[in-house]
Amino acid sequence: MERYVDQELKELNKDILKMGALAEEAIYKSVEALKNQDKDMAKSVIDNDAGIDKLELTVDEKCIDLIARYQPMAKDLRFITTGMKLNSELERIADIAVDIAQRTLEIAGKPLLKPLVDIPKLAALAQSMVKMSIDAFVKGDILLAKKVLLSDSEADRLRNTIQKELIDDYMARDGSTAPRAVQLLLIARFLERICDHTTNIAEDVIYMVQAEVVRHHPEKL
Amino acid sequence: MERYVDQELKELNKDILKMGALAEEAIYKSVEALKNQDKDMAKSVIDNDAGIDKLELTVDEKCIDLIARYQPMAKDLRFITTGMKLNSELERIADIAVDIAQRTLEIAGKPLLKPLVDIPKLAALAQSMVKMSIDAFVKGDILLAKKVLLSDSEADRLRNTIQKELIDDYMARDGSTAPRAVQLLLIARFLERICDHTTNIAEDVIYMVQAEVVRHHPEKL
Repeated sequence: MERYVDQELKELNKDILKMGALAEEAIYKSVEALKNQDKDMAKSVIDNDAGIDKLELTVDEKCIDLIARYQPMAKDLRFITTGMKLNSELERIADIAVDIAQRTLEIAGKPLLKPLVDIPKLAALAQSMVKMSIDAFVKGDILLAKKVLLSDSEADRLRNTIQKELIDDYMARDGSTAPRAVQLLLIARFLERICDHTTNIAEDVIYMVQAEVVRHHPEKL
Repeated sequence: MERYVDQELKELNKDILKMGALAEEAIYKSVEALKNQDKDMAKSVIDNDAGIDKLELTVDEKCIDLIARYQPMAKDLRFITTGMKLNSELERIADIAVDIAQRTLEIAGKPLLKPLVDIPKLAALAQSMVKMSIDAFVKGDILLAKKVLLSDSEADRLRNTIQKELIDDYMARDGSTAPRAVQLLLIARFLERICDHTTNIAEDVIYMVQAEVVRHHPEKL
């Protein structure tokens, strides 16, 4: 028999998926705006952020309210507290998309440097890590969460390559590229920070699933 | 009469203060290391971070355990969930101190640019905002929390000034300064991100205190 609380936990799952979809969309649009020098799209990322902030607060309130009303034990409680953490990580990911959109507005109209070095590649990786980390939460899938953690070194590598190229091949050789190169360098770092947030989510998911395993099935350790 | 739970909430308060003190120390040491080009101190910031990560996990576990055992209502529950958020913010602040220490190792030994532009000023502001935000939590002091929020525009201003100076007066004029100038620019951004984390804490504190006021004293709104 389904408990009332199960229905509400399903709703929470849906809310997290919604936050995830909004965060993914924000990253996608901020990077498209950068690629196409599309100021309107960059502005729409910035404008949409207030709605994401509001949804974060609503989900956070719902979680606290769920705990207060159902006083859930072990597994459900950990699911809810992990949901609160994901909610906050996803809001921060959307904030970083705003940072990217703002940098994009800053460089729009100026000639691009070697069209964006490896930024599109890093952006694609960041988007896939966001998707995987949310899937891992929804399915309680430790293997998928571990895949996210393993992807992080590739994100670091890409960021470092981009950074080195921008410093050594552009700024150091021709100081006049510095204003644009710095913006791209920051965007590369923003994308890598998005990847870091997905590893936070992945770690929370592993912790959520394993703490349960430890509590109920110590023989499985 | 004091309830058992009060004793444990006091312990939680102490743990958060401990996390706060460790985060403050990490920032202080990372900036001292930068000022004095002290590689050993930078390394000690990096080495100490594992202990802070461990304390974060312990505090997080304690919070979930407190909720599970006491099933606290309204005010206590909100205090605990806010404590969980602060704990996470403080761990991230300590992580940023590690970022600063890593950049410091990168530039140690190379000649400093106009000794560090306004970075020491921004660092002092970041440290004071960390201190104020933790005080605001411990005392439930909304005015102090609002002071943290108001300080954020000064942090933004300082970061922008530092960034502009490094780009326009150094990198654009003399490309050979780029490798060092980029590290300082990143450090300025790290410090500003620390300030952002303190505003997250301040917002959580206001939310914690006001939600309680709203629930119990709607006439006070």
